[in-house]
Amino acid sequence: MTTTSKVSTDCDYGKIGKQFSYLDIPHSGNESAWGLVRFPICVIKNGQGPTLLITGGSHGDEYEGPIALQKLAREIDANDIQGQIIILPALNSPAVRAATRVSPIDGVNMNRAFPGREDGSVSQILAHYVTNVILPSVDVVIDIHSGGKTLKFVPFACIHKLADPILQAKSRALLRAFDAPYCLELEEIDNRGMLDTTVEEAGKIFLATELGGGGSSTLETISIAERGIRRALCHLGLVKDKQESASLNASAYSLWETSSPGSYIHSNTDGLFEMLVELGQEVRLGEAIAQVHSISKIDTDPVVYRAKRDGIVIGRHHPGLIRQGDFLALIAGRETDEN
Amino acid sequence: MTTTSKVSTDCDYGKIGKQFSYLDIPHSGNESAWGLVRFPICVIKNGQGPTLLITGGSHGDEYEGPIALQKLAREIDANDIQGQIIILPALNSPAVRAATRVSPIDGVNMNRAFPGREDGSVSQILAHYVTNVILPSVDVVIDIHSGGKTLKFVPFACIHKLADPILQAKSRALLRAFDAPYCLELEEIDNRGMLDTTVEEAGKIFLATELGGGGSSTLETISIAERGIRRALCHLGLVKDKQESASLNASAYSLWETSSPGSYIHSNTDGLFEMLVELGQEVRLGEAIAQVHSISKIDTDPVVYRAKRDGIVIGRHHPGLIRQGDFLALIAGRETDEN
Amino acid sequence: MTTTSKVSTDCDYGKIGKQFSYLDIPHSGNESAWGLVRFPICVIKNGQGPTLLITGGSHGDEYEGPIALQKLAREIDANDIQGQIIILPALNSPAVRAATRVSPIDGVNMNRAFPGREDGSVSQILAHYVTNVILPSVDVVIDIHSGGKTLKFVPFACIHKLADPILQAKSRALLRAFDAPYCLELEEIDNRGMLDTTVEEAGKIFLATELGGGGSSTLETISIAERGIRRALCHLGLVKDKQESASLNASAYSLWETSSPGSYIHSNTDGLFEMLVELGQEVRLGEAIAQVHSISKIDTDPVVYRAKRDGIVIGRHHPGLIRQGDFLALIAGRETDEN
Amino acid sequence: MTTTSKVSTDCDYGKIGKQFSYLDIPHSGNESAWGLVRFPICVIKNGQGPTLLITGGSHGDEYEGPIALQKLAREIDANDIQGQIIILPALNSPAVRAATRVSPIDGVNMNRAFPGREDGSVSQILAHYVTNVILPSVDVVIDIHSGGKTLKFVPFACIHKLADPILQAKSRALLRAFDAPYCLELEEIDNRGMLDTTVEEAGKIFLATELGGGGSSTLETISIAERGIRRALCHLGLVKDKQESASLNASAYSLWETSSPGSYIHSNTDGLFEMLVELGQEVRLGEAIAQVHSISKIDTDPVVYRAKRDGIVIGRHHPGLIRQGDFLALIAGRETDEN
Amino acid sequence: MTTTSKVSTDCDYGKIGKQFSYLDIPHSGNESAWGLVRFPICVIKNGQGPTLLITGGSHGDEYEGPIALQKLAREIDANDIQGQIIILPALNSPAVRAATRVSPIDGVNMNRAFPGREDGSVSQILAHYVTNVILPSVDVVIDIHSGGKTLKFVPFACIHKLADPILQAKSRALLRAFDAPYCLELEEIDNRGMLDTTVEEAGKIFLATELGGGGSSTLETISIAERGIRRALCHLGLVKDKQESASLNASAYSLWETSSPGSYIHSNTDGLFEMLVELGQEVRLGEAIAQVHSISKIDTDPVVYRAKRDGIVIGRHHPGLIRQGDFLALIAGRETDEN
Amino acid sequence: MTTTSKVSTDCDYGKIGKQFSYLDIPHSGNESAWGLVRFPICVIKNGQGPTLLITGGSHGDEYEGPIALQKLAREIDANDIQGQIIILPALNSPAVRAATRVSPIDGVNMNRAFPGREDGSVSQILAHYVTNVILPSVDVVIDIHSGGKTLKFVPFACIHKLADPILQAKSRALLRAFDAPYCLELEEIDNRGMLDTTVEEAGKIFLATELGGGGSSTLETISIAERGIRRALCHLGLVKDKQESASLNASAYSLWETSSPGSYIHSNTDGLFEMLVELGQEVRLGEAIAQVHSISKIDTDPVVYRAKRDGIVIGRHHPGLIRQGDFLALIAGRETDEN
Repeated sequence: MTTTSKVSTDCDYGKIGKQFSYLDIPHSGNESAWGLVRFPICVIKNGQGPTLLITGGSHGDEYEGPIALQKLAREIDANDIQGQIIILPALNSPAVRAATRVSPIDGVNMNRAFPGREDGSVSQILAHYVTNVILPSVDVVIDIHSGGKTLKFVPFACIHKLADPILQAKSRALLRAFDAPYCLELEEIDNRGMLDTTVEEAGKIFLATELGGGGSSTLETISIAERGIRRALCHLGLVKDKQESASLNASAYSLWETSSPGSYIHSNTDGLFEMLVELGQEVRLGEAIAQVHSISKIDTDPVVYRAKRDGIVIGRHHPGLIRQGDFLALIAGRETDEN
Repeated sequence: MTTTSKVSTDCDYGKIGKQFSYLDIPHSGNESAWGLVRFPICVIKNGQGPTLLITGGSHGDEYEGPIALQKLAREIDANDIQGQIIILPALNSPAVRAATRVSPIDGVNMNRAFPGREDGSVSQILAHYVTNVILPSVDVVIDIHSGGKTLKFVPFACIHKLADPILQAKSRALLRAFDAPYCLELEEIDNRGMLDTTVEEAGKIFLATELGGGGSSTLETISIAERGIRRALCHLGLVKDKQESASLNASAYSLWETSSPGSYIHSNTDGLFEMLVELGQEVRLGEAIAQVHSISKIDTDPVVYRAKRDGIVIGRHHPGLIRQGDFLALIAGRETDEN
Repeated sequence: MTTTSKVSTDCDYGKIGKQFSYLDIPHSGNESAWGLVRFPICVIKNGQGPTLLITGGSHGDEYEGPIALQKLAREIDANDIQGQIIILPALNSPAVRAATRVSPIDGVNMNRAFPGREDGSVSQILAHYVTNVILPSVDVVIDIHSGGKTLKFVPFACIHKLADPILQAKSRALLRAFDAPYCLELEEIDNRGMLDTTVEEAGKIFLATELGGGGSSTLETISIAERGIRRALCHLGLVKDKQESASLNASAYSLWETSSPGSYIHSNTDGLFEMLVELGQEVRLGEAIAQVHSISKIDTDPVVYRAKRDGIVIGRHHPGLIRQGDFLALIAGRETDEN
Repeated sequence: MTTTSKVSTDCDYGKIGKQFSYLDIPHSGNESAWGLVRFPICVIKNGQGPTLLITGGSHGDEYEGPIALQKLAREIDANDIQGQIIILPALNSPAVRAATRVSPIDGVNMNRAFPGREDGSVSQILAHYVTNVILPSVDVVIDIHSGGKTLKFVPFACIHKLADPILQAKSRALLRAFDAPYCLELEEIDNRGMLDTTVEEAGKIFLATELGGGGSSTLETISIAERGIRRALCHLGLVKDKQESASLNASAYSLWETSSPGSYIHSNTDGLFEMLVELGQEVRLGEAIAQVHSISKIDTDPVVYRAKRDGIVIGRHHPGLIRQGDFLALIAGRETDEN
Repeated sequence: MTTTSKVSTDCDYGKIGKQFSYLDIPHSGNESAWGLVRFPICVIKNGQGPTLLITGGSHGDEYEGPIALQKLAREIDANDIQGQIIILPALNSPAVRAATRVSPIDGVNMNRAFPGREDGSVSQILAHYVTNVILPSVDVVIDIHSGGKTLKFVPFACIHKLADPILQAKSRALLRAFDAPYCLELEEIDNRGMLDTTVEEAGKIFLATELGGGGSSTLETISIAERGIRRALCHLGLVKDKQESASLNASAYSLWETSSPGSYIHSNTDGLFEMLVELGQEVRLGEAIAQVHSISKIDTDPVVYRAKRDGIVIGRHHPGLIRQGDFLALIAGRETDEN
Repeated sequence: MTTTSKVSTDCDYGKIGKQFSYLDIPHSGNESAWGLVRFPICVIKNGQGPTLLITGGSHGDEYEGPIALQKLAREIDANDIQGQIIILPALNSPAVRAATRVSPIDGVNMNRAFPGREDGSVSQILAHYVTNVILPSVDVVIDIHSGGKTLKFVPFACIHKLADPILQAKSRALLRAFDAPYCLELEEIDNRGMLDTTVEEAGKIFLATELGGGGSSTLETISIAERGIRRALCHLGLVKDKQESASLNASAYSLWETSSPGSYIHSNTDGLFEMLVELGQEVRLGEAIAQVHSISKIDTDPVVYRAKRDGIVIGRHHPGLIRQGDFLALIAGRETDEN
């Protein structure tokens, strides 16, 4: 399969030590007739142990991944690990360079492009390569997301509800080890085309995060990513750090879900957006959580949006204006099935 | 002067009661050959008392002003006030509609367009009208800003250092009454063309705010605007609310300045932006406060930016990427001359 | 099939009465990471009778459909009908919001996207849903088009030449009942991907209109749509209105065709476009119908375009400039086979 | 003055006969570093008589002027005239080439740029040249406009109310001779910067037209321009055509005005625009003339706009969508002072 | 196959003599609802002989093809040839009109679209038509390229290394006859989707050129195309010109290759691009050939790029700025297997 | 004057040694609310001698200046000079970063913005600062231009015809010392707003270059700039290099002019552009030098452009397409008055 993919690299996945390189895809467009699109990669390998793929920059306006991952790539010493870590800090590197969610080259949302297409556009070709060349030897995937320019979240890590109870248990264990401020079993709006789905369907452990958002990053959200990944390395046995390992189960842990009806609220109004609650705040069914004002007629009453379930507000629309169809808020409740 | 301005309105500034209307400027462009640009206005007048102008939406990507001001405009009962309140919640209404800092019609930054030009473009004509028709009868101006899409601040209210000690004292009194989480005597990068300067040069009291930013708003930042303005109404005698008035001087108060050299830090690097401190955090001269990573070469060390004075970080660059010349951070110190 | 389509709705097609709702498709792009694209729908059901689908806004710059259909949706009382009316007034709602022919989201021309793709882009997913979820229970489709920003027509309703004589007869009967100012058996330039073709190939009655154009609408053209649909409701037995029914066959009727060679004329010239005849005017083979002037060299003679058949001019290029390849005019002749 | 203007031409205004040439202005931009912007001109001179300037294409999306004027320029024989005709068929030629109202080069609306600026942008330089080099020797100006892409009118010619009764009478005489379907003494929304104002203030006769619109032209509207100008040539004595001259006062004539309050109606709503009356239709004060529907919520009642005076509808908004501030309709009444 | 392709033409490939016509594809978009995209074609046929297809304008910013081919189309007399010449001077005519590499209509690079798709976008439909309707009767294809806006080459003609020795020999013979200043057996970065590959896989002779570039053309580069094609006509027996034929093998000839590792060099740096050698210059392994300067920090040393093989520089990056992934230079060595 | 200019810098023009710094102008726009626009500057001072200002990047698509100047800035040792060298390698740095002729910030052509405006836009403010702060202490200005994206030249240096014979003689001496392949006394199309004019009117020596173009640079053109400036340093006494000085008058020298009528040729045609002569070629009055082909009708003869004087072709239009008004070619003749 490697032989027909358009992706080329001088990276040798079997080599011991740390390599910095690129995955290159030829792209011939108006801006560069014989150009390459380059995706940075770092591969660290030593001894025996599991293979972990860590991805960031799947969406180009989410910054915790690109920052935390390139810092980790520089800091981790190959001698300190047992197994292999593959780091792709800019899974959609043209989007990261352009600070946009989707690729400016082909308009593709990388996290809707899996399992990819060998004869597709640049993003689809990369997704195909990840699926068919990298994933087969991978045991665990950690994918660092945040809200991007249009969403904002309390910082959380998440897994999904899985049919396989063993995989579910392993995923929950990783989630607990990662120890983000909030832990979720997230119900997606539509999980087709996601890296998550491709990995899970292959029977592998998958953990994602949503850390902040609004098109920026903070000391806190980057630290959550860095600390979570380092804890995951311990948990997975890739790194032997007694102090870190000892603390893995120390912190309190509670699990949230978004599978109850009414968790997702979308706007049906165009206008000036005002949240009436803070992120992380507890709300009750029927409570006003946001309102949309007319942008042009200031003597008009706003349209009020109310919670459709009990829970805490874990996500919100970020931009100051909102339009019909935009995501407005996400409310999570306690996951009761926690065994 | 009114007779030659292109601004027309059916608003009667001398009328008792509450009026909702528009300031209209003819604009003939590709999108609308014989159109008007409409700026919403609310005028509330009753009894005897000072005249307060409250403005928001001077930049179209700052939302606390447009939201808080139209809520106040709907809520304030003319019978409850003594004096006049003029509310312009969308001082640059084309920018507010487009969610951009500057007007999409003429590319003008409204807060660099004062005192305006009668024969200028739409924004300049409005600035000229505000300066020449509205301001002459105004005693106090409160202008609600926040960081917009590219900046983020701890929520603060601010005045400037003024030559006239009486005006300075009155301004400080209003600043104290407004009671924002942080109070500043802000040194501007360049104060030419600002509404602030026009008002202060006319010997009137001017208070501005910078509440959050990042192109969004929160329950907290909107509440600061609403509460601050209501407290200002009491302080100025426009509203008689014993409870509120009693509390006006209750809260602790400390004043900050940005006039010391090194307060403003700008980036000289293009790349991925990482803050190393949180907004509101105290820093020492020489302390690393941010670093800029290469977006394409992940094995390269970042460029580190360090504090050039002691103080607290009150403002930061918001977007995930940064370019040469971008504002990076603002550090404030205690104002020592607080009498 | 419904279970795998990405389209969701709370509309219940089996419910008696009138429902206003939306067909929702998740779309994750730069503007809205977790957003929905919403297509308004109205379903009216009562008693026993045929099912009629009425669509408008297939192209976003054609306004008679969106206006007439939402007026009808509000006005029709469920108690007055026997059967079911499904109204989609904005079949390409992103295009209608943007006032463009094709969708700004995926660049797709909705009327070239049928029968759709379940795993396609937003427009293709909607086409697939209409084809596979809505159409199976539909008996008749009326699709309201007009010329959009680049074409202008005499107001006409049309059907196509069909292989099945019974379907042809039923279609002609509906065409006659609709009673537009002009009635056509239109020969399309290319009928692949059209809703028309999908419906006709399923053996169902299909009627379309082309009412005016130029990116606007008039009292006359909207009235033709409203009146035609109300007459069709009578003709199909969905509404029992004796007065309307009595008039169904009262008006004169003549049928036109565009299948003769030379009906369609395209420009081969770039320049300033001048029509030499009016819409609806009768022309003879060889008669000059338009000319194209140089936009920059005013001392140059124009290029003249002549009729390539006898007939009446039923369509023309609308914009003031024309380019090589643009549609220039459509000439129709009497359909002689009218039995 | 000619010597310092940046406009150059090889046209000799004193030469007998017909010349086709250009007015050239150097413009150095991204698209052409050492380029010229060329404005076509035709000058026809013979014998003794008045000088008439005819302009078209002042706005680039109005086509009757560019078409009728270049046809006349080619057709008129210098031997047939007494005096001078100067024809500028594309007064804003970059806008005509781009099919936009304002110039794509400098964003200037040519008909708000008079009397121009010698050191201004391209459009302002041309306006300055017309004002200072061409107008001084001109006696009469005819400026052919139509509605452009955003407006549509009944075809009318118009003059303005003037302080000088002799000039008013001469203007009315030309208006009568031009014999457009409707004749107006138009009250402008804002007449500053218009060619009209510059010419009238110089004590010269000025006649404009508004012929149709919607970004297109028709046989009828072009013919009105051609016929009106030919009649004006007779009326002014530039052409001796007995037959035409005899007919100059034959047709019925009635004058309309738009100076009564409420003539102009602007939209205060964003949405889908529906006219409830036709252009040219008589309306009464309070009568519904248009309504604006929500584009996204089809179960919402529209906002109705009503006539604010009696009269006929002579202008309307053209595009299918309308926004706050857009011109909606213009209603004219009989001019009672017709002596 | 012709019957289902959307391409239509009045060109008759079997007809003797010279025809100028168009290949037309219906395209319905925002700019033209019922438009055609037209691709000019010239077919010249006489007597018995081979069929040669000559293409240009595959990329819209390469000008030698469109210019030389339309000159040849006008100049060649059908009576002078034996066989058939099919000329497509603007294979991607929308791109040629827009002066862009890829089509502005569908974003497709025509030379990555082969063998095409019958149900694809405009470019794919044309590629499908060329592959399935034109190519079957063609013996030889000459495709005139140059560097476009982003590349610049020494003028060369090229073939590829082919598995079939007979075809290889025939291709080399044509290459020699064409007699460009440089002759190559080019190794492509990625040959999938190229016309070259489709033709070669069908067992036919294919010759391409890269003549200059930089988004311009010169007397020299156009002359090479014209002369080369005329020589090819002699070589192939399509034209009997004794003088030309006699000279076919007169000139010196040496063959170059780019298949050695390190021939292609890409940039890994964003910045200001400086070539340190001239096109055509001989370089040695390790020699500095270019450097990239920081655009914003002038006191920083540039990043130097060195030759990774011996050879001559036959291609370079053209624009003044360069970005990560851009093609930087191509170095060719002597082809040693020249038998 | 410095005190009121918005330009700030930490560069000290009086300091001995070499300084790298920036000229900073605050700019508050959509992309950066509190940003600076930075213009790199290098100042080198030592001993006694003249002050030379060297500028590049006045247009952002001309690369010899930015490259040669930053190389010289790094290479020149302050100890080697006598006097002062001020280097501004990116006079319009926003344009250089964007690779556009004019500034993307304000649309201003820097070389039409002199002497600048203190209260103008960013480019005008910089021009004002250069004029009023830097120029007063400057003796000589060398401004490195090339053709940019739309023009291409034989490499030449140029001065203008000046009223003052002494200044003319000094300028010619510098021109001779610079020793570019071609030397011109250039007649500008319009010299208002140019740096050249501002400097010459202040009685100072000004030399410019036009080196190549087409939006690229070459080893040859950059070398001409570097060598010319180094020779100028010797000639002006800023550097004492015996070898270089000795060679200053060694090379042959001939002077060309473009002041004869017909030197400049502009296109009046839109189409595909073909040069019929090479740059540097000698032509005769009436000789065909270029032709413009129709881009869409290949059976049409081209429009031919002929030389309007004898001379050599020193400049040409670069892009493959040409439009009405574009510069087509520049022909220079021998300057006969060379004393």
